[in-house]
Amino acid sequence: MNDLKKLIRDIPDFPKKGIIFKDITPLLQNPKGLRGAVESISDYYKDKKVDIVVGAEARGFILAPTVAFNLGAGFTPIRKPGKLPYEKISMSYALEYGTDMLEIHKDGIAKGQQVLLVDDLLATGGTMAACCKLVESLGGNIVGCAFLIELTFLNGKKALDNYDIFSVIRY
Amino acid sequence: MNDLKKLIRDIPDFPKKGIIFKDITPLLQNPKGLRGAVESISDYYKDKKVDIVVGAEARGFILAPTVAFNLGAGFTPIRKPGKLPYEKISMSYALEYGTDMLEIHKDGIAKGQQVLLVDDLLATGGTMAACCKLVESLGGNIVGCAFLIELTFLNGKKALDNYDIFSVIRY
Repeated sequence: MNDLKKLIRDIPDFPKKGIIFKDITPLLQNPKGLRGAVESISDYYKDKKVDIVVGAEARGFILAPTVAFNLGAGFTPIRKPGKLPYEKISMSYALEYGTDMLEIHKDGIAKGQQVLLVDDLLATGGTMAACCKLVESLGGNIVGCAFLIELTFLNGKKALDNYDIFSVIRY
Repeated sequence: MNDLKKLIRDIPDFPKKGIIFKDITPLLQNPKGLRGAVESISDYYKDKKVDIVVGAEARGFILAPTVAFNLGAGFTPIRKPGKLPYEKISMSYALEYGTDMLEIHKDGIAKGQQVLLVDDLLATGGTMAACCKLVESLGGNIVGCAFLIELTFLNGKKALDNYDIFSVIRY
């Protein structure tokens, strides 16, 4: 995946001083980059009979539906409070300071469906762990959590140690 | 597109009393629904040599990258203020009450590129008109604006009358 790694741009001191932000936009706007990222995740999970791919607002919406399309699966969104219009369940999770909440429609996943979760970045894993709890609350069977980028030094896999993790690009 | 229309769910009084919200999540989570929507837009624009598909945060992120993938194009995001990490330009636009702002990376579109904009819903067209201005400020050539749903009674096409408009489902 060295070719894809070349399409990631380092932005020093964003969103705050001392952090080097991994900007994925050069990869996404490159047709070969977008195709390579989506096919890399799809190939890894293609024999898992994925029914539904789940992604969380906002950046999880970029790759999850595309992987769903490529696998012949459906897409179910996880959103911030108040955005989903139908019956839903909620899950709160810890941020660096305070907590936040995520929601999923109650009929977004049927019991026993094979579910793949996709996000752009695995950092500490807190958001993805909350997403997994939402999926399991609905009876979904998690086949894995896939990321475009994994920051291995933050050890986010530890928060997701019940699950199969696949990352396209690792730092 | 009658089959796709059956997958749209009416939610009365959301987000406020008197509004019937068109919930697209049943369509997205149905593999045939997701595929039908993406292929419908892609087929319409497949001879336009689209280089970049643009979508705005958050719901525009769901279909725009998938259409880009299917057309062999790249995806460039438009985001709310403070989210994009690199050099960018901004555009303010009117809401029902007050104004809001959208941003795009300066290198998100190269001069002369063929650009397709994709969003889930055409209502009054204000957000999409602001997105078109951002694309044109960067020298992009807009081949069209595509929507999953068009609420024709809100006459959003009027705000976009310079552009080719394609909607998968019309009400």
